[in-house]
Amino acid sequence: MSFNRLIAKIIETKNPTVVGLDPTLDYIPAEIKEGAFEAHGRTLEGAAEAFLNFNKALIDAVYDVVPAVKPQAAFYEKYGWPGMRALSETIAYAKSKGLFVIVDAKRGDIGSTMEAYADAWLGTAEVEGASFTAFGCDAITVNGYLGSDGIKPMIEVCREQDKAIFVLAKTSNPSAGELQDMKIDGKTVYETMASLCDSLGESLPGEHGYHGVGVVVGATYPEQLVELRQKFPRIFFLVPGYGAQGGGGKSVAGAFDKDGLGAVVNASRSLMCAWQKAPDLTLAEATRAEAIRMREDIVENR
Amino acid sequence: MSFNRLIAKIIETKNPTVVGLDPTLDYIPAEIKEGAFEAHGRTLEGAAEAFLNFNKALIDAVYDVVPAVKPQAAFYEKYGWPGMRALSETIAYAKSKGLFVIVDAKRGDIGSTMEAYADAWLGTAEVEGASFTAFGCDAITVNGYLGSDGIKPMIEVCREQDKAIFVLAKTSNPSAGELQDMKIDGKTVYETMASLCDSLGESLPGEHGYHGVGVVVGATYPEQLVELRQKFPRIFFLVPGYGAQGGGGKSVAGAFDKDGLGAVVNASRSLMCAWQKAPDLTLAEATRAEAIRMREDIVENR
Repeated sequence: MSFNRLIAKIIETKNPTVVGLDPTLDYIPAEIKEGAFEAHGRTLEGAAEAFLNFNKALIDAVYDVVPAVKPQAAFYEKYGWPGMRALSETIAYAKSKGLFVIVDAKRGDIGSTMEAYADAWLGTAEVEGASFTAFGCDAITVNGYLGSDGIKPMIEVCREQDKAIFVLAKTSNPSAGELQDMKIDGKTVYETMASLCDSLGESLPGEHGYHGVGVVVGATYPEQLVELRQKFPRIFFLVPGYGAQGGGGKSVAGAFDKDGLGAVVNASRSLMCAWQKAPDLTLAEATRAEAIRMREDIVENR
Repeated sequence: MSFNRLIAKIIETKNPTVVGLDPTLDYIPAEIKEGAFEAHGRTLEGAAEAFLNFNKALIDAVYDVVPAVKPQAAFYEKYGWPGMRALSETIAYAKSKGLFVIVDAKRGDIGSTMEAYADAWLGTAEVEGASFTAFGCDAITVNGYLGSDGIKPMIEVCREQDKAIFVLAKTSNPSAGELQDMKIDGKTVYETMASLCDSLGESLPGEHGYHGVGVVVGATYPEQLVELRQKFPRIFFLVPGYGAQGGGGKSVAGAFDKDGLGAVVNASRSLMCAWQKAPDLTLAEATRAEAIRMREDIVENR
């Protein structure tokens, strides 16, 4: 009901990073695509199969050196229900390799609707008394614009199923500040959101001082990372925007506590496309080398 | 690229309401469920098939008296990819009956990720030069917490594909105010969001004075409906929370302009469960009677 399992994996792999699985067809080697198209046609099903096989190859390359993966739901939804099936199978494969799986779905709704999202991504669906797992992730990103009504149903499922969430606070994009930097009674919206998460997290206590209601803070805002780390010592951070979006090891250093814990840093494109920049290496070799380079960059700077 | 088609349907049916398709197994008549379970087992697939057949029965009952339907994505995601397939087939069926389809998915992300959501729900996915429709809705609800970066990619697809969006402003839930009522430079967050939508809507002009960037304002906040209707005469509203959540015809009156346009009011449970309260009527009769009752309640008060 907290980030205990993620933190244990971070300690085991000595690596506070997460591999984003945000596939597009352009990122996938021709031989993987052709195999999928031969089996399923140049269709949504064929594209979805290419995503699944590409993800499996990436996971095989790094599962023993990284603690977690983060598939971005949008890239699978784009290919309809076949895409969602590929997402579901990617999650199952990552879990079979011992990885902690964070789905980046940024869901946000209220009451029974948010319960349905919680059941979808972290819990189970009941059919006439039998229990089925729809997606079965370990954690999900959540959009808290609807207030605590929109977060509490997720927390209930986290408690029952030993799962955790990351709520958007300060996102990595240029226009993040339009709303998030605005001040309410002298406090920014992102701090107000983090503060709400810190209260809600009391019901999901965990080891190393971190509860189960984390927040998302972009690598592109290093000062806010430092500010939030100091103000909220019990909140675990998910930090996107490393690599292709511009943040490097130095920019995310402020996300960590004195033990080097308290955050996971995500990179997607730089890992998924590493093979394109290393023509002499296999996909597995190129991805693994970039995962290790990223780990060193972050660990040396934190 | 605006709400022209929705407004034309509202005028044609003389009905500014939308039927929420948010199925749970408890809402579905035993004969529909049993048929689905016999064909697909008591599984995710069986539940998904029951949803699809229930939705088709509801649509058959009302397609000529309502302008639009609004499936809530969460209830389908809960049943995994089979649920998403049932959602996709529900959308296609509703469109085949001439209905305007608003997916309530509250997606919100940035850049290429938001483009992927836009392609998923409103646009197309390309596979080696061929174009496929994943979900093919007419409009989608959007969460704007990430700022204009999170809305603009949707607007691009709206322009290309003649679609529209509703961005969350003031949601219908009790804790909506925790963030949305807070004041930024003297303006509430929900008004700030509506104001952003009004600027962004300039690029999606439409008939009757309404552009293609609508907002969501809950029926449970009648004063805010009046306030926003006055301040933003060009913004079309999606008003949830009628019926089971407590709002009635009087509470939503302020959402409309002097011509009775400017808003669609959603009800879900009161329509989907109408058959349970009318044991002497068929599902079709009970649903249609409640749809007509709701239309009268809203039209008489607006």
